[in-house]
Amino acid sequence: MAVYNAPLDDMRFILNDVFKAENFWQNNENLAHVDLDTVNMILEEMAKLSKNVLLPLNRTGDEEGATYQGDGVVTTPAGFKEAYKQYAESGWIGLGGDPEYGGQGFPKMVTMLTEEMVFTTNQSFALYPNLTVGATLCMLASASEEQKQTYLERMYSGEWSGTMCLTEPHAGTDLGIIKTKAVPNDDGSYKISGTKIFITGGEHDLTDNIIHLVLAKTPNAPEGSKGISLFLVPKFMVNEDGSLGERNTLSAGSIEHKMGIKGSATCVMNFDEAKGWMIGEENTGLASMFVMMNYERVTMGLQGLGGTELAYQNAALYANDRGQGRSDTQLQSPEKPADAIVHHADVRRMLLNARANSEASRCFAMYVAKNLDEQKFSTDPEAAKAAAARVALLTPIAKAFLTDKALEATVDCQQVFGGHGYIREWGMEQIVRDTRIAQIYEGANGIQALDLLGRKIARNEGKYMQNFLAEIRDFVANMQADHAIKQATLDAADTIEELTKTVMANIGQRKNEINGCAVDYLHATGYLCYSYMFAMMVEAANGKEGDFYTNKAKLANFFVGRILPRIDAHAQMVKAGSDPMMDFELSYFEVPAS
Amino acid sequence: MAVYNAPLDDMRFILNDVFKAENFWQNNENLAHVDLDTVNMILEEMAKLSKNVLLPLNRTGDEEGATYQGDGVVTTPAGFKEAYKQYAESGWIGLGGDPEYGGQGFPKMVTMLTEEMVFTTNQSFALYPNLTVGATLCMLASASEEQKQTYLERMYSGEWSGTMCLTEPHAGTDLGIIKTKAVPNDDGSYKISGTKIFITGGEHDLTDNIIHLVLAKTPNAPEGSKGISLFLVPKFMVNEDGSLGERNTLSAGSIEHKMGIKGSATCVMNFDEAKGWMIGEENTGLASMFVMMNYERVTMGLQGLGGTELAYQNAALYANDRGQGRSDTQLQSPEKPADAIVHHADVRRMLLNARANSEASRCFAMYVAKNLDEQKFSTDPEAAKAAAARVALLTPIAKAFLTDKALEATVDCQQVFGGHGYIREWGMEQIVRDTRIAQIYEGANGIQALDLLGRKIARNEGKYMQNFLAEIRDFVANMQADHAIKQATLDAADTIEELTKTVMANIGQRKNEINGCAVDYLHATGYLCYSYMFAMMVEAANGKEGDFYTNKAKLANFFVGRILPRIDAHAQMVKAGSDPMMDFELSYFEVPAS
Repeated sequence: MAVYNAPLDDMRFILNDVFKAENFWQNNENLAHVDLDTVNMILEEMAKLSKNVLLPLNRTGDEEGATYQGDGVVTTPAGFKEAYKQYAESGWIGLGGDPEYGGQGFPKMVTMLTEEMVFTTNQSFALYPNLTVGATLCMLASASEEQKQTYLERMYSGEWSGTMCLTEPHAGTDLGIIKTKAVPNDDGSYKISGTKIFITGGEHDLTDNIIHLVLAKTPNAPEGSKGISLFLVPKFMVNEDGSLGERNTLSAGSIEHKMGIKGSATCVMNFDEAKGWMIGEENTGLASMFVMMNYERVTMGLQGLGGTELAYQNAALYANDRGQGRSDTQLQSPEKPADAIVHHADVRRMLLNARANSEASRCFAMYVAKNLDEQKFSTDPEAAKAAAARVALLTPIAKAFLTDKALEATVDCQQVFGGHGYIREWGMEQIVRDTRIAQIYEGANGIQALDLLGRKIARNEGKYMQNFLAEIRDFVANMQADHAIKQATLDAADTIEELTKTVMANIGQRKNEINGCAVDYLHATGYLCYSYMFAMMVEAANGKEGDFYTNKAKLANFFVGRILPRIDAHAQMVKAGSDPMMDFELSYFEVPAS
Repeated sequence: MAVYNAPLDDMRFILNDVFKAENFWQNNENLAHVDLDTVNMILEEMAKLSKNVLLPLNRTGDEEGATYQGDGVVTTPAGFKEAYKQYAESGWIGLGGDPEYGGQGFPKMVTMLTEEMVFTTNQSFALYPNLTVGATLCMLASASEEQKQTYLERMYSGEWSGTMCLTEPHAGTDLGIIKTKAVPNDDGSYKISGTKIFITGGEHDLTDNIIHLVLAKTPNAPEGSKGISLFLVPKFMVNEDGSLGERNTLSAGSIEHKMGIKGSATCVMNFDEAKGWMIGEENTGLASMFVMMNYERVTMGLQGLGGTELAYQNAALYANDRGQGRSDTQLQSPEKPADAIVHHADVRRMLLNARANSEASRCFAMYVAKNLDEQKFSTDPEAAKAAAARVALLTPIAKAFLTDKALEATVDCQQVFGGHGYIREWGMEQIVRDTRIAQIYEGANGIQALDLLGRKIARNEGKYMQNFLAEIRDFVANMQADHAIKQATLDAADTIEELTKTVMANIGQRKNEINGCAVDYLHATGYLCYSYMFAMMVEAANGKEGDFYTNKAKLANFFVGRILPRIDAHAQMVKAGSDPMMDFELSYFEVPAS
């Protein structure tokens, strides 16, 4: 069975040494109630729960999968129900929820660490509470007071779960063309009709009720994304006293058979004049959904981090145990027929790729989380605005770069196992399969890249990026540590500054330039972000005694020498632009359909 | 269902225009019997068989998988038996076999193309005949005349199949520590005892007999890889008249449950004093195995090519069909709610990554195949020797680089499908899962890289590489075409020349340098090889009329601008060397086992 020990020391290093969380909280009256002792206890509790309850269900959940029983009934794999009950009753779902409605009010800097542990030990399981949290964020921002009063507490407590119903068979990335209809009833409610697909947790056996947040079009709504409204559509009606009433006319038609996250029920949901209530104003549905998207997209980055962390720990254990060949340095285990493969530099290269990704991902997610918290809780409007700009810039990177690097890292760790990595029993191939989805859903990574280069860079003429580069240079200029990461980070910042100018000039020249350069631009900036994170980690470790701290500097050396050089390749590819793709006639891509 | 149309035009372009196969054959008396009309017929026949028979079994084979029925009985998925019968009776297994024993004597330049089609349409199925071909190559090189007479014809005809039994639970990469024993009997045969794992086609229901080639140690054999002998161990004894005799004491103990290639039976084989006969001389078993390794490793590259080709064709079809958003160039389908995603530059980037990989892979495999044929069939000993040197240098690249790039390409094509790429029904995720194994087996890609940098570069002081670079520069100097690929290829050659000098100097300084730099060195040289292939394709297309030829130049443009820049990143990472990995104490990689 897979091993996992929550990297609590690394988490505390990021929280306390790098980001000085307690200072941050104490200097903000809206967060002054958060104390480090409680946070430590929370982390330790989740370390136990994730290891002892969620991890043991990870492989069995993959083998059994969620099951469609017919007649709209979906069951989760054995053990999920009990684990969910324990998870919900311990209050994890409402950890970051609004105290006004029964939540515990912890900042994202804390919940991101608990979410990491859940994603590390069981990606399928993680999605059930995670979608509920997403739905509550959306409702908190846009729902009426009555709606909040009726639903939030039961969702925070885990009695009810939530979904987000966006995608339709013909409309995924392009939500402007959805067909689901919402026809008003006389009582202010709506009749919702349509088919939604890829609905995570659309139906299951974990909760008494499921609250669907559904995008639909009202009669005569404007075409495209400006004519989309958001509706709350419960599986069971809720009576005035909070008890459950009649069953709504919606049901799961089937579930998908997928590459991975098999324990997560991905449903086709049929709404047949189901009763629903509008959330927020008419035709503002997409905006309401996007309120919580920044949170969710960082969370998908955490899924990548989780996959990386589990893959790393198990690959490192295997590399210490498996003997093949002899160390190039010196004979290590003369009493055995072979030395452990952890002595081979190439095996270390794969392990360190993963570990560097894990540590940089966690640091970057925390950096974004801190800015999310600043944006949400700061009493200084200017500070909140600056934080919001950083969040806007960095969210697509947090989602796409972290998950793209995570696939590489999990594949590397699988490779450490040789042939055993391909065998289900060892669990490594499941991590690869599970992690792969994070590059696709919640806005495919190519879409994240368009968001970065189109909305966050081109639309404001690179201003967010200029501010970010200034911050990075300022940080490096003030570093006490003497380390190669300083010059490397400054060079990376120069690369991105020049690249941003070049690509913006090219965007003015070529219609397809944003679309054709976005992914490589995102990757180039992703390496800059990681470099900045390693600079922060080196600085936080500087002058402190013990291997734990000196190893932070060593991992940064590995990053500078063996990972960061890729930034130049991506920059060169961006400069080559979109012409090499658009030069082809459409017919070049034609393939006979049979 | 997945689509596939064999890219016969591309294959003929490589065979005729790029490598001028007919000239090559006619100028070599051992190959003068090969004529282009027959070859064309062969390609067309395989195009039909692979599309009509093998492709329809690809997904059903994945869903059902090979099954262990207990008592050593293994069954292949429904339809495999009938398909195998048709495949064998059409003579495909003996296509490249020695005519002296019933083979058809076609060169690798032809069989690589038929193998590509089989791997494209059904990776699991492909392995059954493929392992048999591998076993016959090994026997042809090392077995006695009597052994050849007894076995080869039945193996070429597909009546009997072959396996290679190398790996043991504790010994994969490091075969020197195998434990399987071979104790001599009085009659010249041996009693073979031991357990072998990961035996592809170790047991199945396709053939009457299975001929296992087994590595084992004789009593008092020297330690390590110098004390390994090779044995022929049939499932059923063969009587003098060629009929089958008693069952040998060997059996499959179980089969593995894997990430992919589920239709291929991967067996644990138990040999319990099974009767076997030595092949070749005592203690030369590894050398005998390696005779066929060059052929097999190129073939694994073809598996990568096949995965890429199937993924590309289906992604291109989907990109033409799926509408999301609008083209940045101009409105394309005003009558529809959205334009086809093939108009988006980023979708084209992913498609072209795959197509460039497919075309460069095929060209490179053909280049290596031509050298394999030159080595095997040339009547000029000097030419054969030069070809053998090229084969030695390029084989690890053909195996590892092609399969590493194939995983990227299949993941890119899966990404084109968005959420549907993750759903089993669409077949894309299977291509990713199936293709992944090719990076692992037949010598994991890290081991290929060690072979390249350790044996093929460092051991002869870079001589093979110098010759290869001279050939590339000579080719470019003589090109008539005017294209960016010329300068790009010369630059890439300079990069590799300088890198090779640097890494050889570093190897003298640091014990772990080969191990720590091998993979990135292999990737850097792989991009040079692809660049050389695109130069050849551009030159072959130069001056010819029609989109087919001008598109070859356009694809080379895409390669130069959007793929080749990675060579510099890998070169920089090689220069950073092994110290960033070896600086860590062993304890850094320790993970608690529970």
